Amino acid sequence: MAPMINESFAEKAIALKRPLLKRKVLPAAVSEIREDPGAFQSLRVVEVKPFEYPLVIQSGEKILIDFGDHGVGYLHFRLANVPGYQIVDSPVRLHFSFGEFPLEIVTPPEAYRGTLGRGWLQKEEKSVVFAPYSGMLERRYAFRYVMIERKDNARFPVMFTDLYAECESAVDIRAVQLPCISDGLIEKIRHLSIKTLKECEQDVFEDGPKRDRRLWIGDLRLQAMTDYVTFKNIDLVKRCIYLFAAYRTESGKVAPCIFPDSPPFVDGWTFADYSLFFISCLHDYLEFSNDLTFAEELYPTALEQAQLTAAQLDTEKGIIDGDAFIDWCQDLDRSVALLGVYLYTLEQLRKLSVRLDKPVEWIGSEIKRAKDALMSFYCREKGVFVTASGQVSWHSQVWAALSGVLSREESIELLQTTEQISPLFVMHTPYMIHYYLEALYRCGLREKAVNVLKTYWGAIVDCGFDCCPEVFNSQNPFESPYSAPELNSACHAWSCTPAYWIDKLFGE
Amino acid sequence: MAPMINESFAEKAIALKRPLLKRKVLPAAVSEIREDPGAFQSLRVVEVKPFEYPLVIQSGEKILIDFGDHGVGYLHFRLANVPGYQIVDSPVRLHFSFGEFPLEIVTPPEAYRGTLGRGWLQKEEKSVVFAPYSGMLERRYAFRYVMIERKDNARFPVMFTDLYAECESAVDIRAVQLPCISDGLIEKIRHLSIKTLKECEQDVFEDGPKRDRRLWIGDLRLQAMTDYVTFKNIDLVKRCIYLFAAYRTESGKVAPCIFPDSPPFVDGWTFADYSLFFISCLHDYLEFSNDLTFAEELYPTALEQAQLTAAQLDTEKGIIDGDAFIDWCQDLDRSVALLGVYLYTLEQLRKLSVRLDKPVEWIGSEIKRAKDALMSFYCREKGVFVTASGQVSWHSQVWAALSGVLSREESIELLQTTEQISPLFVMHTPYMIHYYLEALYRCGLREKAVNVLKTYWGAIVDCGFDCCPEVFNSQNPFESPYSAPELNSACHAWSCTPAYWIDKLFGE
Repeated sequence: MAPMINESFAEKAIALKRPLLKRKVLPAAVSEIREDPGAFQSLRVVEVKPFEYPLVIQSGEKILIDFGDHGVGYLHFRLANVPGYQIVDSPVRLHFSFGEFPLEIVTPPEAYRGTLGRGWLQKEEKSVVFAPYSGMLERRYAFRYVMIERKDNARFPVMFTDLYAECESAVDIRAVQLPCISDGLIEKIRHLSIKTLKECEQDVFEDGPKRDRRLWIGDLRLQAMTDYVTFKNIDLVKRCIYLFAAYRTESGKVAPCIFPDSPPFVDGWTFADYSLFFISCLHDYLEFSNDLTFAEELYPTALEQAQLTAAQLDTEKGIIDGDAFIDWCQDLDRSVALLGVYLYTLEQLRKLSVRLDKPVEWIGSEIKRAKDALMSFYCREKGVFVTASGQVSWHSQVWAALSGVLSREESIELLQTTEQISPLFVMHTPYMIHYYLEALYRCGLREKAVNVLKTYWGAIVDCGFDCCPEVFNSQNPFESPYSAPELNSACHAWSCTPAYWIDKLFGE
Repeated sequence: MAPMINESFAEKAIALKRPLLKRKVLPAAVSEIREDPGAFQSLRVVEVKPFEYPLVIQSGEKILIDFGDHGVGYLHFRLANVPGYQIVDSPVRLHFSFGEFPLEIVTPPEAYRGTLGRGWLQKEEKSVVFAPYSGMLERRYAFRYVMIERKDNARFPVMFTDLYAECESAVDIRAVQLPCISDGLIEKIRHLSIKTLKECEQDVFEDGPKRDRRLWIGDLRLQAMTDYVTFKNIDLVKRCIYLFAAYRTESGKVAPCIFPDSPPFVDGWTFADYSLFFISCLHDYLEFSNDLTFAEELYPTALEQAQLTAAQLDTEKGIIDGDAFIDWCQDLDRSVALLGVYLYTLEQLRKLSVRLDKPVEWIGSEIKRAKDALMSFYCREKGVFVTASGQVSWHSQVWAALSGVLSREESIELLQTTEQISPLFVMHTPYMIHYYLEALYRCGLREKAVNVLKTYWGAIVDCGFDCCPEVFNSQNPFESPYSAPELNSACHAWSCTPAYWIDKLFGE
């Protein structure tokens, strides 16, 4: 299980570290959370009063602070004695509960039954022995709301004389200059998208600043695409590509994710689609930057991902031994979609090879082999792709449409047929919706793409999100891949591509 | 309620601040707490294995670390992934429970019913988001034991690769050179006493490093006396005397305690005996140091304490409106003891005045007036002092013996009669026992004093204490002035005078 480490890439990744930008964010209001059947998850945050100092807190009291927008950073505060009262003669115990959205605040930690480690619950307790006290919480949180509760039993009140978030990001949203768009909803969606990307651009491109906080390559690819039309933070893209090339699994495959902190670390498992997306990352980077030197340096790693996948391709069975991610979708048969991803990235590898004057013969023959494999799952009768297990999913059709096995007209027909069939296995994440948008765009179905964008992300805006979430199903506001909707990430990188699509769909 | 602040004294107190000495203390053992009817509070700490790295901890696991001795400081640790296991992919939550003695560890916080703020419970929780992690707990703790419990539910183990206490004190115990004493028990008692004093010498003379952590003048007086024969940390004594002179209550009285942290603060209430002990502090300081300049500077404050008390002295009723501390003893009538304290400190003021060439006429007449008041409570028939409420207590007799109203022979008789009567109101704290020892010593009852010292502090040694406690009653190991024996301070300044007494009783 020893990872394969390339020290030269690792050093270059370190050399590309940049200090984060810090921004002081002040509380906006003292609020409360009320039940409201008309609101997302039946919870609404209502302002009680504007925030002002001093903010007095008695023992047993709970105060909900609304910072007015999503932030990623550290909570700082000053606590003082209240003039005219007995002073703090025993420690004040403060319990903090951070939330990106109200459900996260109101769900009691003892009710947690999720499949992820409960350590991700954004709760913390702190003792303040003497006042005045000035300090901070050590852990970084992703939040808009903070519920502060006094858990000691001392009879004196204390007061906050300062309370703020020191927010961090690698980028400044004010630096992004984009053309105006007359459509108000599209403007809002674009704002949410850019805000999301900004919140996730930290020391690496994180998947979500609340949870995982890791560099996942599926997310990185979408973040980088969106970054190219917004922040253009090229150093961070290069740093992350270097990290994936530096720390690979024993077999040489690019890992699905990297724990970026000292020292970076990869687990032993892989996702076949995620390893292949290394090719996409390099392909997109070269297309945006024309930086041939960097592409040349990383090309062998990209090529190797295709070669390692080729070794697992059986033209009758598909890619064997290949765990893949594709989407959060229970019981999904991922085999056909994975062949689609393979072809999609082989095509990118071919383009990359041509730009770099590399031989393309092997790639050409591999494309042919993979096409044959994929086409063996096409059912002429139904007009869609069916897995060996007999499953018809949106995922298979979207990736088949992106694979290049069909002409534009055939792809259009495939997507239309799929819509008529309305498969049981639907797309669950904004990440998968992104590839659906790409399929529509490649088919020239611009209107349809705009419609999907406005319907899906428009509903997110309507639900009151400050950023784009990890999971969103308008039919089930409590859907969670972890059986814990309070732990869903409400600011998630793979949901940030609307700014990319708005540039594509409206910018031309 | 505005305090009276002398800025010049306040500045001098700040100028006398000194950096603390830091010392790294390593864990000694992994232990467990077992019930044992033969042990103090029926709990015994038993070593499970010597401490060694790495110390692996699984979720749900509890590990008791024994540092081998009492310390005051900060817990530092490094946490790492365990090679060969899945790495930390969700935050590890560690719960820490610090204890000076095992009862403090095993009593669940939900069982707390004490009268002091529950914030003093030495508990803390910390999230570690990524490993390797290196950090510390922000709060200073007083402890020998730490129970560490993993409260997250993640399936991977983690390991401590470093764990230590950074202990702090103003003084170094190795610098104290004292003559050898052949009596092993007396040696042990002296060691406990000096260790206690050291643990309490911080930025000020604290009463107890676990709880209160404040500068109390009743404690300061005994600490300074003991310091003069051990550490000789004169700057700290001066700093604390300046603090009491700088921050007084509105009436000009010296406060019973000062919250020393930025800025220092006094509450509005007073203890009549504690205000008067300012005189004792200055008297003792001059006797030890012969520093006439400092004594001259602080003399007006000392004189004022006597004058303010004089204004409250009614020769028939005693000191009116005078709350006093005297001892932790429920329903104690403190009036007679307080008159004793007044006379005791007036005599010290007289000596101080003579040394400084100040007029002594008023003091002389005040001593006469106070003696008359005190003698009016003497009951010739019973041979003891009886309060207006008819109460006979050890406290009244001890302070009468120290007041100077009786000859040495009369005092001896008084103490003997008291022992025969065996009053219901007995001495509860080592603090009060100190003044009993002083009464015995003044009466020339050296053997009796040695006996009390060995019996009382010897029993403390036998109970396994590392330092001298705040409260000790061999008849009731669960006695607590706060209805919470787990919050009793097991290292308390006012219990540190054995080193002073051993110097007096064995050093001549």
